[in-house]
Amino acid sequence: MGGVTTTTSSRTRLSPDERRTQLLDLGVRLLATTSLEELSIDVLAEEAGISRGLLYHYFGTKLGFFEAVVQHAADDLYRQTAPPAEGEPLERLMGSITGYVDYVVANQPGYRSLVRAASGGNDTLRRIYDDTFRALADRFFAVDTGTIDLPDTPAVRLVLHAWQAMTEALVLRWCDDPAGLTRDDLLRVIVDSLLPLLAALP
Amino acid sequence: MGGVTTTTSSRTRLSPDERRTQLLDLGVRLLATTSLEELSIDVLAEEAGISRGLLYHYFGTKLGFFEAVVQHAADDLYRQTAPPAEGEPLERLMGSITGYVDYVVANQPGYRSLVRAASGGNDTLRRIYDDTFRALADRFFAVDTGTIDLPDTPAVRLVLHAWQAMTEALVLRWCDDPAGLTRDDLLRVIVDSLLPLLAALP
Repeated sequence: MGGVTTTTSSRTRLSPDERRTQLLDLGVRLLATTSLEELSIDVLAEEAGISRGLLYHYFGTKLGFFEAVVQHAADDLYRQTAPPAEGEPLERLMGSITGYVDYVVANQPGYRSLVRAASGGNDTLRRIYDDTFRALADRFFAVDTGTIDLPDTPAVRLVLHAWQAMTEALVLRWCDDPAGLTRDDLLRVIVDSLLPLLAALP
Repeated sequence: MGGVTTTTSSRTRLSPDERRTQLLDLGVRLLATTSLEELSIDVLAEEAGISRGLLYHYFGTKLGFFEAVVQHAADDLYRQTAPPAEGEPLERLMGSITGYVDYVVANQPGYRSLVRAASGGNDTLRRIYDDTFRALADRFFAVDTGTIDLPDTPAVRLVLHAWQAMTEALVLRWCDDPAGLTRDDLLRVIVDSLLPLLAALP
């Protein structure tokens, strides 16, 4: 992967924005096999075939680089969980959840390290994590992407937050040990659990 | 609190085990208002009215002290979530969950810091955390404490794990902002969500 990128980038003249985006794409791709703790400026510079100095030029600091890569990965997650434009509400929810499960499966080291960092007290990564899951919850209420007809109340938001936490725990544990459940079984448990949870609200 | 403890402990001759337990009790009490990050040997020594050297004598290292206090707190959580001996399965589950919610509410700083440490990559605290929640799940299958008649399969364990994660997220967020839900409403959402989750299993 690094070789291909190096060849391409050294032969193509890119604008600074294009080059920055290319480096972020590379950082996100590395998160599919590497945790945030293992991902360093050195690794990225080597993979991209450029100097550390140039990387610092684009991202300022090590934290700036982490932040930009994680935000880029979060944007990918958001795109890959977009519900299909058509279909019954629960079918559209199933489409969105399928995107989430497949994203986590394909990006386990990076996703797990984000959860660790966000839960472990890194405020910047916590903010990106919280903003992302709030944006995913927003979709339930948006006119064009709404998957289920829900009133946007604090109590519904609270339950959606808990359901997201449950989904994350379920998918990460299932990646470690499927416990006899197929991907379809897993998707069914996640989707079927939402309405009963909401129904228990007063 | 510190004053009372100091007076008691300086006037009473305790065995080493009793003194150690007394110090652990004090550490756990401090976790009701203090995070693990803020809880130091210095703070405990001052509250207990003894020297740091004596504390190291009992706990070896700083990590040994943290580990012992967190294990002691986890044992408390386990005791306080014991289901009542009598009653219908869902009533007994409600009793156990009520114990959990009240424990978290009463020990927020300590509980949150344990979650942070366990999620953030502290292996020792992660082990205590995982062991505790596995023991809480074990109760569902024990003959004398079983709250619901469940087969002990990997798939049921997986769902119980996710339900515990959901419950924790729900309670911690509710502590920050009740979203119009009373404690009884919250308990109802938690208890009512379990059977539909399990019902979605193939």
